[in-house]
Amino acid sequence: MANRREFIKKSSLAGLAGVGIPLAAFTAAPQAKKGTETKSEGSKWADGSRLVVSVSMQFEAGGQPDNAESPFPQNMQKGYTDLPAETWYQYGYKEGIPRMLDNWDRLGIKVTSHMVGTAILKNPALAREIVDRGHEAAAHGMSWSSQYSMSYEEEKKFIKDGADAIREITGFTPVGYNANWLRRGENTLKILQELGFKYHIDDLSRDEPFITMVNSKDFVIVPYTIRCNDIVLIEGKNFSVDQFFSQAKAEFDQLYLESENRKRQMSISFHDRIGGTPQMVQTAHELIKYIQSHQGVSFKRKDEIAELALKDKTTIRE
Amino acid sequence: MANRREFIKKSSLAGLAGVGIPLAAFTAAPQAKKGTETKSEGSKWADGSRLVVSVSMQFEAGGQPDNAESPFPQNMQKGYTDLPAETWYQYGYKEGIPRMLDNWDRLGIKVTSHMVGTAILKNPALAREIVDRGHEAAAHGMSWSSQYSMSYEEEKKFIKDGADAIREITGFTPVGYNANWLRRGENTLKILQELGFKYHIDDLSRDEPFITMVNSKDFVIVPYTIRCNDIVLIEGKNFSVDQFFSQAKAEFDQLYLESENRKRQMSISFHDRIGGTPQMVQTAHELIKYIQSHQGVSFKRKDEIAELALKDKTTIRE
Amino acid sequence: MANRREFIKKSSLAGLAGVGIPLAAFTAAPQAKKGTETKSEGSKWADGSRLVVSVSMQFEAGGQPDNAESPFPQNMQKGYTDLPAETWYQYGYKEGIPRMLDNWDRLGIKVTSHMVGTAILKNPALAREIVDRGHEAAAHGMSWSSQYSMSYEEEKKFIKDGADAIREITGFTPVGYNANWLRRGENTLKILQELGFKYHIDDLSRDEPFITMVNSKDFVIVPYTIRCNDIVLIEGKNFSVDQFFSQAKAEFDQLYLESENRKRQMSISFHDRIGGTPQMVQTAHELIKYIQSHQGVSFKRKDEIAELALKDKTTIRE
Amino acid sequence: MANRREFIKKSSLAGLAGVGIPLAAFTAAPQAKKGTETKSEGSKWADGSRLVVSVSMQFEAGGQPDNAESPFPQNMQKGYTDLPAETWYQYGYKEGIPRMLDNWDRLGIKVTSHMVGTAILKNPALAREIVDRGHEAAAHGMSWSSQYSMSYEEEKKFIKDGADAIREITGFTPVGYNANWLRRGENTLKILQELGFKYHIDDLSRDEPFITMVNSKDFVIVPYTIRCNDIVLIEGKNFSVDQFFSQAKAEFDQLYLESENRKRQMSISFHDRIGGTPQMVQTAHELIKYIQSHQGVSFKRKDEIAELALKDKTTIRE
Repeated sequence: MANRREFIKKSSLAGLAGVGIPLAAFTAAPQAKKGTETKSEGSKWADGSRLVVSVSMQFEAGGQPDNAESPFPQNMQKGYTDLPAETWYQYGYKEGIPRMLDNWDRLGIKVTSHMVGTAILKNPALAREIVDRGHEAAAHGMSWSSQYSMSYEEEKKFIKDGADAIREITGFTPVGYNANWLRRGENTLKILQELGFKYHIDDLSRDEPFITMVNSKDFVIVPYTIRCNDIVLIEGKNFSVDQFFSQAKAEFDQLYLESENRKRQMSISFHDRIGGTPQMVQTAHELIKYIQSHQGVSFKRKDEIAELALKDKTTIRE
Repeated sequence: MANRREFIKKSSLAGLAGVGIPLAAFTAAPQAKKGTETKSEGSKWADGSRLVVSVSMQFEAGGQPDNAESPFPQNMQKGYTDLPAETWYQYGYKEGIPRMLDNWDRLGIKVTSHMVGTAILKNPALAREIVDRGHEAAAHGMSWSSQYSMSYEEEKKFIKDGADAIREITGFTPVGYNANWLRRGENTLKILQELGFKYHIDDLSRDEPFITMVNSKDFVIVPYTIRCNDIVLIEGKNFSVDQFFSQAKAEFDQLYLESENRKRQMSISFHDRIGGTPQMVQTAHELIKYIQSHQGVSFKRKDEIAELALKDKTTIRE
Repeated sequence: MANRREFIKKSSLAGLAGVGIPLAAFTAAPQAKKGTETKSEGSKWADGSRLVVSVSMQFEAGGQPDNAESPFPQNMQKGYTDLPAETWYQYGYKEGIPRMLDNWDRLGIKVTSHMVGTAILKNPALAREIVDRGHEAAAHGMSWSSQYSMSYEEEKKFIKDGADAIREITGFTPVGYNANWLRRGENTLKILQELGFKYHIDDLSRDEPFITMVNSKDFVIVPYTIRCNDIVLIEGKNFSVDQFFSQAKAEFDQLYLESENRKRQMSISFHDRIGGTPQMVQTAHELIKYIQSHQGVSFKRKDEIAELALKDKTTIRE
Repeated sequence: MANRREFIKKSSLAGLAGVGIPLAAFTAAPQAKKGTETKSEGSKWADGSRLVVSVSMQFEAGGQPDNAESPFPQNMQKGYTDLPAETWYQYGYKEGIPRMLDNWDRLGIKVTSHMVGTAILKNPALAREIVDRGHEAAAHGMSWSSQYSMSYEEEKKFIKDGADAIREITGFTPVGYNANWLRRGENTLKILQELGFKYHIDDLSRDEPFITMVNSKDFVIVPYTIRCNDIVLIEGKNFSVDQFFSQAKAEFDQLYLESENRKRQMSISFHDRIGGTPQMVQTAHELIKYIQSHQGVSFKRKDEIAELALKDKTTIRE
């Protein structure tokens, strides 16, 4: 196999003089400063893990806006409440999270729960139970709203209120952030750094954590997934649960193979009302049992992953 | 495993004073009175069943409006009838329900059939046969119409006419209700209680029956499903029948596991023209045979489930 | 098992006097004359077959309108031709039908090919080859157009021109008809009877052929399928070929079971550019091999099925 | 089995005089000159291969327009950047192509990479690495734009700039072309011939290469696929990776069977950000291992296939 670093050293834009196209447009782009220059090949997890798996359990139900998107047809007449859709969301806290919590205990793993402020205000006991059972509480905004178009001040209050609600209710100070539909704005990382957060997950670009500089300080990206994500696969792509299993298993098999030589992270994500159904919990159980049958795999909360990344000199920096 | 009730007792909104957000908006919400306080953990079915499975066979075909939604493209020019779509619906009563009835007999189970008034007026003999073969006739509105936007008087007549048609045609007095697309309105439960109904199914929030107070009297919710529902999976999500099987099997496996310690109900739902095809009946047969191979599982009509729930002091009350 | 005919005899609308709804609206409906009264239970195929399977191979490619619907995004700017989409259709006659023809020979079965007039005018040799290899040529309209909104005269010419093209090119006189998207109009059956056709397939209501009176003469319905149909499953529902196989296998298994006691027909349908791909032909081969491994199954052209139905006194009449 | 060539010789439009429809409309159509006259039956690959498999690895990420289509909902407010969607594209060059390159090495195969000009300008080292590891660099336009509606001059510059970028960056002179969404315009082939290209892939009509005359010289079509194509199946049809595997396996099985008697080509296609995920690479690995277990199969770059086709007198000419 060719050595990738060799090729990269020889590469530059200098040879393009004859192409006859305005290169400035590309070299001036903000992304041009970032690239593929840093590779973790050969590096390993600082704690000796071969592969790290991170499981998310998003807590959103109860915090949704009126007539929020659901599996029901989006054709309600104005002025009426979609009552069965509300019960679909209620399932998330009445059955979904309790069932998942029991499943994590049976499997002996700890997960990260990004919590919407309005959701945990409605079911504070359940939020507290998540933390009391050893899981990480992370922030997910004060309410179920797009934040990418907020002003700096609005967005700062929105993030802070959500984090405060988590701390007040659960006693846990969140250090990780997830924006609604992953859609952070241009100010989000700056605000998160100001508020004391250590990492965010709204990035799909790598299969391992990496570090970026925000306000001249390190800030960690613990990558999320839309490939092993219940809301994307089950509600978005209409997968059956056996498809979810097959796809996540194939994802693991490849990452496990790669992890022999390189630091790799797998991410799996569940939402209260979707990942908490009997069919999905049964599927998650089988999947995680399969993963656990492999040597060197460890399940970690995202705050632990961020901590490991910060301390590790081989962590990719962009 | 942590004790969930312990956490719940310690939980309250009182600690939130410092959050700096308008809590009143949440505590004043009508849903705030309902919560996760009551759990059935440890409770069992009053009749000794380990797990109760409820099968629905909805009788709607023949009662559909002109050019109702079907698998055919919704692009007919105005003023013309979609003739092949009509034959798709006809299949429901010519082949679908007769085939399902034979399947239930082969399996030795009794099911609940929510019947649209206009559908059974068109095929009264078939409606009667359903009842004569031991199944429950339940109400599903006089016609195939949204009822959530009706006035109180309109809706009461709509529900009563449908129930009267069932009683006149089949001799069975319906005690259960299912609204079109599960979309009840704010008055529906009150009307159902006034008309002598005992339960409705338009709620997805739990995997076991529960009781709510309507007009100061008990009213049962026998939860329905959109996870093991032919119209949602086969026509909505475009599942193949093997996906339907895998998903329902996973659902059962998890609920059966949980039923060791707790009252659990599984719901499976079929519609005449969809669940009554050869491919779906073959699939349902295999699925139910699989379920029946487990000890302690009983198949019950929803009126039986409602009756059990009403007599059982451990039934959850919301 | 209860006797269905018993229930049907006891059934009538007479008992509905007390329902308080305008029954006239239902009893006056034209469909009210047709019902579930006639059942084929106990009847068998006249030629001793246990189950009859009918395979369609629709010949449409080359006859499609400009920029016809295809798997490519329907977002071409006006005035331009979607060239790759054209090559997708060309595949139907360059690879698809020749491959399917070889497959039918390997399997030893004869099929029915509904042919669009403009398609066979473009590839007459291929149309002739279909017939010369023993398959049935049936009509599918002169061009790829909706006919339900045509006037009587227009529609008669449209159907006749297509039938004439088939006869001139292949030497075969078509006796069967299939309308574009199955959408016949109110005059279609009358016109078909006038033109000497014996059957049409644009009806999904039963799993066996049946007879209706048109112009006071018998006209056969040889039911089509959208459940084992490549265009609906592969292009409409985005099935993979293994899903097509599983679903059609389940369909067969149930119909084979039922055929022990009753006349049953299974329909499977392919289109040149979809059913003629390598992946679909491989799948069809496996499926048909599986079906052929069962005793008493015969594969018949639809003209043979119509003929059998006309001669059989037990054929359902509506 | 009937002899297809026999039928074709006897076939003509002459016999249609009596049909009574305006044949001129069909015989005058430009496609009427092309037909099914030439068949490769009996012909074999010139190098002795039984079946040739061509794998594509499209390099597009980084070259996409702002807020390009992605798995994220296409509902961004105007004026904002869809930041997570950008990271989805970044994955293509940070993880996807490097992972696929390693996979091709493990499997010992060489592939064809159609490269968007703006994409490789952003990641020149990666483009060069593809070539240095033995793969073919082919052209895919200067940017991610529709070219079918460009003027001749515009389009010529668009194609030339993209090809120049590839040559400058990788040292490889591209001889193959792929238009955005396969949508070439009426001038594209003429321009490609003028610029020295030898083949294009924007044609789905056959399962083997063929030759057409452009500017009175031979030009090869190396057919592409939308049936074993990650963007169509995974993002377009929402397949899970096991469906991708099943469908591509069935495709191979049939083509391998046919290749006993006839020149056959299989095409499989991957895109950086889709085919480069762990789950897809694991799937591609299994698929190609399965294919490699069959005697006589060779994996070839498309430039090699075009070269073979040009030298082979049995190649189909249209």
